Amino acid sequence: MGLENYIYGRNSVFEALLSNSRKINKVLISKNTSNDVKINEIISLAKEQGVVYQFVPKEKFQSFTGMPHQGVVAMVSPVEYTNFYEFLEISKKEKDKKYSKLIILDGIEDPHNLGAIIRTAVCAGYDAVIIPSRRNAQVSATVEKTSAGAINHIPLIQVNSLSNVIDKLKDNDYWIIAADAHGKDNYFDIDYTDMNFALIMGGEETGVSRNNLKKSDFIVKIPMLRDFNSLNVSNAASAIIYESVRQMIQTKNHSV
Amino acid sequence: MGLENYIYGRNSVFEALLSNSRKINKVLISKNTSNDVKINEIISLAKEQGVVYQFVPKEKFQSFTGMPHQGVVAMVSPVEYTNFYEFLEISKKEKDKKYSKLIILDGIEDPHNLGAIIRTAVCAGYDAVIIPSRRNAQVSATVEKTSAGAINHIPLIQVNSLSNVIDKLKDNDYWIIAADAHGKDNYFDIDYTDMNFALIMGGEETGVSRNNLKKSDFIVKIPMLRDFNSLNVSNAASAIIYESVRQMIQTKNHSV
Repeated sequence: MGLENYIYGRNSVFEALLSNSRKINKVLISKNTSNDVKINEIISLAKEQGVVYQFVPKEKFQSFTGMPHQGVVAMVSPVEYTNFYEFLEISKKEKDKKYSKLIILDGIEDPHNLGAIIRTAVCAGYDAVIIPSRRNAQVSATVEKTSAGAINHIPLIQVNSLSNVIDKLKDNDYWIIAADAHGKDNYFDIDYTDMNFALIMGGEETGVSRNNLKKSDFIVKIPMLRDFNSLNVSNAASAIIYESVRQMIQTKNHSV
Repeated sequence: MGLENYIYGRNSVFEALLSNSRKINKVLISKNTSNDVKINEIISLAKEQGVVYQFVPKEKFQSFTGMPHQGVVAMVSPVEYTNFYEFLEISKKEKDKKYSKLIILDGIEDPHNLGAIIRTAVCAGYDAVIIPSRRNAQVSATVEKTSAGAINHIPLIQVNSLSNVIDKLKDNDYWIIAADAHGKDNYFDIDYTDMNFALIMGGEETGVSRNNLKKSDFIVKIPMLRDFNSLNVSNAASAIIYESVRQMIQTKNHSV
């Protein structure tokens, strides 16, 4: 079991127990951990859910040196991805009630960016995050930590071909919006309240791939007010995602 | 000269040379670096500016193991902070022309967040970033790298007392806006186009300090559409900062 199959830190372990979405095999708690409120909450939750927990000497945590464990780790099964086609079937039934909003990541390399974007998608009430199985960071312990546990609060969909998924989404009445520095419109000139959409954010160095740009219905840019190249990709995602939230709340056309 | 006094990586070294805002003593380039476009640009710029550069065997880079150097480092003087009072004097003269927009960071611990926020402030055309000299990440090589070189494109002001600085800003016709989960208004319900303002973003764990919240004219929140605690602080900053940009561009009341 590699380091990737642990969840590190009080908040992350707590969130994983609370959401109950991942199989936790065991929680390890350092004996040196002070009698902390969060630790007590973790123990209560573990008891409640029949999860084994164990107090261990701090030497046991030496193999986690460099990870932000704060004296608590959970041994877990790898993240369970949601199947794209099952997701689509379920959301078809729900679409009568509200519009669906997805994020597609196309080549994000930095796990910190992946974690931050998933976290923002959760906060903004988006319905799923889609990542390709190659040429993109996968959901690891670092991603879980950076997401502050948010990965347990949203369907994560891993797919082999983004291109096929985009086609399928278009067949299912989704509009595709790509973020690109050479976009025609400013991102805030799009009306996000009136459609199902998937927002594609591209990799740190490469941006959205040419093929996926071609398939997009809108290509939007974030205006740069100084002669400087671009935002960090998670900050760019946040600006666009929260613009969609602003529109939905301010226009009150749609339930959020 | 500690590791903090180097700039790592092709883009960061290039930006530092281009902006010419920091004294670069020497650029080291690994002999193993392929004949890369960016490296050639770095060499041209160094020649132009009379900066010494040197090809060194890759063994020389062993002391930078773990840093994202990509075969290029620049030895630099530590970042030069701008003096708050000098900044205020200069911006007084400029304020007739346009409103001034500042970011104040109150306890940001993660250098990646600091770098990302500085980068977003640059892209959004803000006028300065103010950080306290204690209990906040300082501008290091990691921050420079994460900012993609943006730290060289905006005044960075380091101060001993945020509290005094906030008082002084208020005396100088700035409005103080703090971001806080318990804020009264949504961040997009404030009109950012019609005032000089300083936006305070608080630390990852602690938020904006109570004393600084008390001094604020507005406390704004970012709406959470799921039962989840909060955004990453750099993503939160981006949502608010770019809302101010959106308002300025869409209302066209002010030059940007």
